[in-house]
Amino acid sequence: MNEKRIVTACLIIIGNEILSGRTVDANLPHIAKRLNDKGIRLAEARVVPDIEAEIVGAVNACRARYDYVLTTGGIGPTHDDITSACVARAFGLPFGRHAQAARRLEEFYGDKVNPARMRMADMPEGATLIDNPVSIAPGFMVENVIVMAGVPKIMQAMLENVLPLMQGGDPVVSRTVVVYKAESEMAPVLAALEQDFAGVEVGSYPFFRVGRYGTSVVIRSADAALVDRAAGTFIEQLSTDDVEHEIPQNS
Amino acid sequence: MNEKRIVTACLIIIGNEILSGRTVDANLPHIAKRLNDKGIRLAEARVVPDIEAEIVGAVNACRARYDYVLTTGGIGPTHDDITSACVARAFGLPFGRHAQAARRLEEFYGDKVNPARMRMADMPEGATLIDNPVSIAPGFMVENVIVMAGVPKIMQAMLENVLPLMQGGDPVVSRTVVVYKAESEMAPVLAALEQDFAGVEVGSYPFFRVGRYGTSVVIRSADAALVDRAAGTFIEQLSTDDVEHEIPQNS
Repeated sequence: MNEKRIVTACLIIIGNEILSGRTVDANLPHIAKRLNDKGIRLAEARVVPDIEAEIVGAVNACRARYDYVLTTGGIGPTHDDITSACVARAFGLPFGRHAQAARRLEEFYGDKVNPARMRMADMPEGATLIDNPVSIAPGFMVENVIVMAGVPKIMQAMLENVLPLMQGGDPVVSRTVVVYKAESEMAPVLAALEQDFAGVEVGSYPFFRVGRYGTSVVIRSADAALVDRAAGTFIEQLSTDDVEHEIPQNS
Repeated sequence: MNEKRIVTACLIIIGNEILSGRTVDANLPHIAKRLNDKGIRLAEARVVPDIEAEIVGAVNACRARYDYVLTTGGIGPTHDDITSACVARAFGLPFGRHAQAARRLEEFYGDKVNPARMRMADMPEGATLIDNPVSIAPGFMVENVIVMAGVPKIMQAMLENVLPLMQGGDPVVSRTVVVYKAESEMAPVLAALEQDFAGVEVGSYPFFRVGRYGTSVVIRSADAALVDRAAGTFIEQLSTDDVEHEIPQNS
């Protein structure tokens, strides 16, 4: 197995609307998968409200702990969009107008420019812009902290533009074996599998489908050959009637 | 405005499958709304992996900080279900077989009982059981920490059974005004609204629908009359052409 250090990231989802249940976050699964493709493991996520002390606290706790911190939300034009100012505060950096971001907004909005829109060009000093081809107002990166919009379409575009700036490791690969048995009946086999193949992670997820119950067994590792060997060993121990099919996937 | 202390909760979502993007969490919005109905505000959420130190750390950080901590996931029968042991560790409590939980499982499984299934009766000493009418294996509560299953149907049933044991405050009520204007054009009005009506929270959420863009403005407070006055003041400042309709809601 490759002994390369695992590269980690933490996602901070910012917004009262997520914590109230009004808006359902759609960004975490997408970010998790795209980071994994790059060999970066999403190791934690937090949802925090639009409160300065909370955002600053979460950014500082997480940037010390993980290789990367990504934030979503709170970089729009209104009073409750305080993420950029909070990131400046977290780093102890001056906060003000980013000349290049300002130019982009002025060009885009023309005579519809207004102070609220121009607020979206206020950033921590020295921030690296992240292009936003959807609605122009850029995200930005300061050291290992990546600040993106919350609207999924915009966030996804920003993420594609920032991924090339990130350093990844080996992507985790996984194989999913669908078994028509209760997970409790396979528990000893699953535990032994994880022990026998050091470096694989074995997860079991029960499901109930029309008329049948079963378990999706997910075998994951950054070492693809090891995943294959572990999956093979697992399948050999099952009756062929119990295994319906195997889903190759990469998450 | 009611000066009752705000009752807060933190949700800890436990599971590698959420952080890999494989499984999309469906519990947060449901929990947020049901807690709010009870007058409890979801103030933070964290997603943590199936790693003992991470779960113990999150439980201890959050139980000190919030009135309630709810966890979802990791209480099934397999080796990666370590939540119950971690909660015991977090409290420094002995961890072992809960007699009543064991009886329920033995009765339910009959001759299909096995060691993996009985693991679901292992809990921190003195835990209060939370009934699970869906699949029997109970959740539990230790002090202010509530431990529930991750499968939404089971989690929802457990939540209904534990809500009567929780102490809430005044529910937050909200009104949503849908405005066909860009949020940046209303930014000063929205900021002034939040300032003029101390105790209301004003959120603005841009949307793009077929052919039109606009903003959902959400006005929230535990004081319903204040929400109404703030919404009235806001609507007066808009042209009637811009306001399509108002969504009464409770989140």
